[in-house]
Amino acid sequence: MNSNTLTPKRLQAMDAYWRAANYLSVGQIYLFDNPLLKRPLVIDDVKQMLLGHWGTTPGQNFIYVHLNRIIQEYDLDMIYVSGPGHGGPALVANTYLEGTYSEIYPDISRDTAGLQKLFLQFSFPGGIPSHVSPECPGSIHEGGELGYSLSHSFGAVFDNPELIVACVIGDGEAETGPLATSWHSNKFLSPVADGAVLPILHLNGYKIANPTLLDRIPHEELEQLLRGYGWAPLFVEGDQPERMHEAMATALDAAIEKIRAIQDAARLHGDVAPARWPMIVLKSPKGWTGPKFVDGLPVEGTFRAHQVPLHPRAHPGHLQLLEDWLRSYRPEELFDEQGQLMPELAELAPRGQRRMGANPHANGGQLLQDLQMPNFRDYGADVPEPGVIGIGDTRVLAPFLRDVAKRNLDQRNFRIFGPDETISNGLAAVFETTDRQWEAATQPNDEFLARTGRVFDSMLSEHQCEGWLEGYLLTGRHGVFNCYEAFIHIVGSMFNQHAKWLSVSAGLPWRHKIASLNYLLSSHVWRQDHNGLTHQDPGFVDVVMNKKAGVVRAYFPPDANCLLSVMDHCLRSRHYVNLVIAGKHPAPHWLTIEDAAAHCAAGIGIWDWASNDGGAVPDVVMACCGDVPTLETLAAVSIMREHLSHLKVRVVNVVDLMRLQPSSEHPHGLSDADFDELFTKDRPVIFAFHAYPWLIHRLTYRRTNHQNLHVRGYKEEGTITTPFDMTVLNDLDRFHLVMDTIDRVPEVGAAGTALKEHLQAKLIEHREYIERNGRDMPEVRDWRWRS
Amino acid sequence: MNSNTLTPKRLQAMDAYWRAANYLSVGQIYLFDNPLLKRPLVIDDVKQMLLGHWGTTPGQNFIYVHLNRIIQEYDLDMIYVSGPGHGGPALVANTYLEGTYSEIYPDISRDTAGLQKLFLQFSFPGGIPSHVSPECPGSIHEGGELGYSLSHSFGAVFDNPELIVACVIGDGEAETGPLATSWHSNKFLSPVADGAVLPILHLNGYKIANPTLLDRIPHEELEQLLRGYGWAPLFVEGDQPERMHEAMATALDAAIEKIRAIQDAARLHGDVAPARWPMIVLKSPKGWTGPKFVDGLPVEGTFRAHQVPLHPRAHPGHLQLLEDWLRSYRPEELFDEQGQLMPELAELAPRGQRRMGANPHANGGQLLQDLQMPNFRDYGADVPEPGVIGIGDTRVLAPFLRDVAKRNLDQRNFRIFGPDETISNGLAAVFETTDRQWEAATQPNDEFLARTGRVFDSMLSEHQCEGWLEGYLLTGRHGVFNCYEAFIHIVGSMFNQHAKWLSVSAGLPWRHKIASLNYLLSSHVWRQDHNGLTHQDPGFVDVVMNKKAGVVRAYFPPDANCLLSVMDHCLRSRHYVNLVIAGKHPAPHWLTIEDAAAHCAAGIGIWDWASNDGGAVPDVVMACCGDVPTLETLAAVSIMREHLSHLKVRVVNVVDLMRLQPSSEHPHGLSDADFDELFTKDRPVIFAFHAYPWLIHRLTYRRTNHQNLHVRGYKEEGTITTPFDMTVLNDLDRFHLVMDTIDRVPEVGAAGTALKEHLQAKLIEHREYIERNGRDMPEVRDWRWRS
Repeated sequence: MNSNTLTPKRLQAMDAYWRAANYLSVGQIYLFDNPLLKRPLVIDDVKQMLLGHWGTTPGQNFIYVHLNRIIQEYDLDMIYVSGPGHGGPALVANTYLEGTYSEIYPDISRDTAGLQKLFLQFSFPGGIPSHVSPECPGSIHEGGELGYSLSHSFGAVFDNPELIVACVIGDGEAETGPLATSWHSNKFLSPVADGAVLPILHLNGYKIANPTLLDRIPHEELEQLLRGYGWAPLFVEGDQPERMHEAMATALDAAIEKIRAIQDAARLHGDVAPARWPMIVLKSPKGWTGPKFVDGLPVEGTFRAHQVPLHPRAHPGHLQLLEDWLRSYRPEELFDEQGQLMPELAELAPRGQRRMGANPHANGGQLLQDLQMPNFRDYGADVPEPGVIGIGDTRVLAPFLRDVAKRNLDQRNFRIFGPDETISNGLAAVFETTDRQWEAATQPNDEFLARTGRVFDSMLSEHQCEGWLEGYLLTGRHGVFNCYEAFIHIVGSMFNQHAKWLSVSAGLPWRHKIASLNYLLSSHVWRQDHNGLTHQDPGFVDVVMNKKAGVVRAYFPPDANCLLSVMDHCLRSRHYVNLVIAGKHPAPHWLTIEDAAAHCAAGIGIWDWASNDGGAVPDVVMACCGDVPTLETLAAVSIMREHLSHLKVRVVNVVDLMRLQPSSEHPHGLSDADFDELFTKDRPVIFAFHAYPWLIHRLTYRRTNHQNLHVRGYKEEGTITTPFDMTVLNDLDRFHLVMDTIDRVPEVGAAGTALKEHLQAKLIEHREYIERNGRDMPEVRDWRWRS
Repeated sequence: MNSNTLTPKRLQAMDAYWRAANYLSVGQIYLFDNPLLKRPLVIDDVKQMLLGHWGTTPGQNFIYVHLNRIIQEYDLDMIYVSGPGHGGPALVANTYLEGTYSEIYPDISRDTAGLQKLFLQFSFPGGIPSHVSPECPGSIHEGGELGYSLSHSFGAVFDNPELIVACVIGDGEAETGPLATSWHSNKFLSPVADGAVLPILHLNGYKIANPTLLDRIPHEELEQLLRGYGWAPLFVEGDQPERMHEAMATALDAAIEKIRAIQDAARLHGDVAPARWPMIVLKSPKGWTGPKFVDGLPVEGTFRAHQVPLHPRAHPGHLQLLEDWLRSYRPEELFDEQGQLMPELAELAPRGQRRMGANPHANGGQLLQDLQMPNFRDYGADVPEPGVIGIGDTRVLAPFLRDVAKRNLDQRNFRIFGPDETISNGLAAVFETTDRQWEAATQPNDEFLARTGRVFDSMLSEHQCEGWLEGYLLTGRHGVFNCYEAFIHIVGSMFNQHAKWLSVSAGLPWRHKIASLNYLLSSHVWRQDHNGLTHQDPGFVDVVMNKKAGVVRAYFPPDANCLLSVMDHCLRSRHYVNLVIAGKHPAPHWLTIEDAAAHCAAGIGIWDWASNDGGAVPDVVMACCGDVPTLETLAAVSIMREHLSHLKVRVVNVVDLMRLQPSSEHPHGLSDADFDELFTKDRPVIFAFHAYPWLIHRLTYRRTNHQNLHVRGYKEEGTITTPFDMTVLNDLDRFHLVMDTIDRVPEVGAAGTALKEHLQAKLIEHREYIERNGRDMPEVRDWRWRS
């Protein structure tokens, strides 16, 4: 070990700064009053409810002060991602010490009164939680759920060549699946065009109640594991502060110099051989510097340090232990009479935007540049008449996405993510202009791999796609995640956390809005020619709809031109999660690009060209939402035209699902009057829906005509079968839709009864045909809309 | 390499068997007729729709024939888990060759007619999918979604000391998060009491369209990674069949001998030092033995071999290529005139239940033993009157679970799973009788770690808990997964796949029913004293309700005695997913254990003791579902008793959520008449619900009185705050519930108006109190029900 990375004076000052952060952390957990211990601690100085997490905190404070040093030493552009669940006190303490906290929240001033408020708000009703949350300056990473710190960090440094993200990974978090695979992110990092991630695996040995695996495997095995993941680990282990300061400083210098060396080699000398990036393993006791024993049981270095180690109200003897603990940091050396950090300590923090709490990358909306957008109308499919068959909706969209990628090559702020499905989802055209980013070895048979592509779809992990994209968005860039519909559920929980981040940050005036997270789901439930039941789940929209109306949107474009219009809108939008569901197989086009633009702007509307109610009250409303339901609805309408020509049918198509909700529930919601105008007050409505049918009821149960609403959708009836048979199995097919109408419109009379019998025979004919031929019968396959 | 593991004759025979499996696999993908190529191939012999996956298939066929050898050689009890997505053709071919397929499906006979049917059903409407599905004998693992093969395999071998699971892991699958962390399962495997997993990492280099990471990192790095995960990898690499047979046989012998050595050392000599279990890395070309070039592009060994490499209907030149390919396996040497496998080849398969397709572990219901159940009534809390405060519902349950564990120690078929949350969820009592299973190093401060505990909660991974438990259940055992409510979403997609497995297997007469998957969710949305918004998501029930009614159940016990009754029921049930949501904090008991048992058996009911409608039509129905909603409802009722004593109030409590659905939708659903009896036909219903409120509307929109139903529940309003304030933020608190009643029952008159003002003042008082004191005001904290 280099024995003089730090001068004795520097080491002493850094230790004092660390003590200050630790003091503020303990203060947050415990103190209601007497923030600087100007008088002996009494029980009324202690909060009534003691809540929070001490265990990870001192280690993170240690890391933060050391990162401050290298930021200054090397003039680094660095942010801090706090992976361990409950490091809130540490990050709050440090951003307070460096001054950013008070700049954002002037009420939490840098004096005794501010300290008291700082302490009080922590884990207090309406205050801040024990994990790092959007309220904490400098953070792009919610510490509530675990496992995403490393993919968020990589997302942040993509296309940010000067940025380094120090990513602290908890050893509990490291056991999650998403974290375990995210170490492989290094195979996708360009040393030329991207920044660097410095993982700091923080082994403190315990989770809530259990030891951690990575702390208990032999050192040799841990080193093999990390080297096997492609990293070059530097180990910093111990519990003696002075030695640990020196060791950490030395390791950080080595890491930064190695990062610089890799980047210089690539940037200045074109040496782009796969790099073994440095990382640090920091092994320090859980609850370091806290109480060693409480009530005869060891605490420091054990799982008992996880939350709140002392409870003075329940155990009066703990009061003295708490005072001793607090005074062990010698607050009188750290803060002056007014409660201000001593100037010689304050000097240790970086200045201005170099402070990790003030770095604009961690408030990405500040850096957000609008995308250079091509005109989506230029990509529209030609629709001489409704019903012409197109190449597949996502395939029409692909050149538009290609050109979004192309137009923003210079500003490098748009990326496409997917788990090895970009071509499968019909988006191959993007590879006409860009490639997949890939830094590992290549072979002659590979396609579209390059060191600096705009597409990340070479890793089969939805978690990675989501995590990378979130990190990319949170640092002020744009993107699209394309995925098979059924498997987007894999990231359902990550979506929940991101939506919550958006909700909370939208309420913080100092946080700038970021670009929306755009899901483009294809390979959807209705087309399962060779996958079957496991690949059929349209329920992600149900998860999405549970989140706050202010941050979620769901679109079901009925055709390619509508998909273009919707995606254009989504890419321009801010601070939402946009869910877009589209097909990739050849399918009818219904609207010209101009009509599509108008229809999508309205979000819902009557398709006059398909209706024959002449603007009067119809006999039945045929509503549809989704590409396949729209196709079946129009096929049903054409059967009714032929066989029940006297029936007045209105066709309503829904693109923007939120239009169905009351306007009181969602900003996109229709007023009751407008809803009644479309769906009538009392006529039967046959609604064909892409996803589970009950969602439509959930959205419309307060509407006037709800009792006449009959919804068909996916009801878990599926197997490997033909496209049309999927709709038959779920009663969503044209024949069932007509029969549903006949059952609900008594006016159809004898013609209806006869038609129903005919259609039942058709269903039998269908079954027999596919069992014989393995494909749909020609009258279904070749059906075309006739105006 | 040992150069004579296989005699030349044996090697030739095994190669022929492999060719037979490959032939049957290609036949499944392509052939409509002419199954044994008795005449030249014509286009009408080829299926109209060509769907399926060739890429992984020949490698899996290779593995299967080699496993057959070691099963016979060592008399192994072995099953095969097929991790790669689309190995369906391989497993179907092999179980057909060994005879199990025809035993289960006599129609698919072992002759030419059977072969033709075997081929036709594959990827054919209503047939079998391209991945391994429940229809495939010998499988416990659905190959649709990826990432769970290794945790399923470990789940299968826990408590099965003689079983070995050969777990084939695809190199695409290996990139998923769940798979990446599941390598660490080896730290939880007892060499004494559990069986062994033999992972076979199958590197064929490509996914759908991309190379795979583990194939492209240097050999040294891959070996470090696997050794870092704690395994001892054996490498088998190449493409020359003869050499590969010898290498694979040698590696498998070494692996089995190493497994036996570890088990013998532990079992016979008490040597339980952490073991480095063997595994195999098999590197073979994707689409091995398939077409090398098609239309000038390389196929074998590239991503182009992933699905269907030849398309004779679209490209007539491909017909000859297909025939050449099929004939390259020399079917005439493999099958006799009648289409039966040559006897000298048939001999290579194991016999009877040693055949992997017939092993009873892969049809776990066959082996299922009922749990020895204590009488849950013996664990009931004493409830002298409704409203006495208990220690926390899960804490009352814990001794019952402890004794379930205890009574089944001998039959070793019950386990508790959790992501480091078992104590946090109030279940610490289980450690009075058992421990956490843990094979890694221990330290003096650890608690409850042992080599053979009944609890797996030492790994922070919901994916692992779910995967292990599914594997354990699928092989005929019982278990409970305890988890924080919000984070169960992490396994939402795994739940989907398991529920689909249950649905499909329930329809297969030869598959025996297995024990239910029991989720016990605690640390729920309404108690967020120190976690806040990130930990608040009660929406898993929405995901669950989307699955088939036949396999899902959801319970919201209102108190501890109901929780006991519900869990007793769930542990006895079969083939469901049971979702149980319960609190862990001190909470009121409402029902004696006998009343609880009766109430839970009914699933829903009027609480007469809390109602004052005297059996007549009430003025209002106060309905509740969930522990906190029940508490707030009863507190609201007591306010109404005091201030609106003339109001006739009926209290309805819902335990079994499915009772709300129409009986036509769910087997638990109430008839409309029974529903009307409880909820009236026209009186206002104020419904307090644990989860998102719209779910209640979704379940009841067809009920007579739906238009008078007013539901309160969680609506994403949350932060770190007091228990009561969480209800206030979401309008679910007692004050809002009373005001909701006043707004909907005009009969309350002036008394209602005055009370409403009073309650609004109370809400302000509440807000001020918690802001001052950080806890709920005494009248809320100390409130008790008075009859």
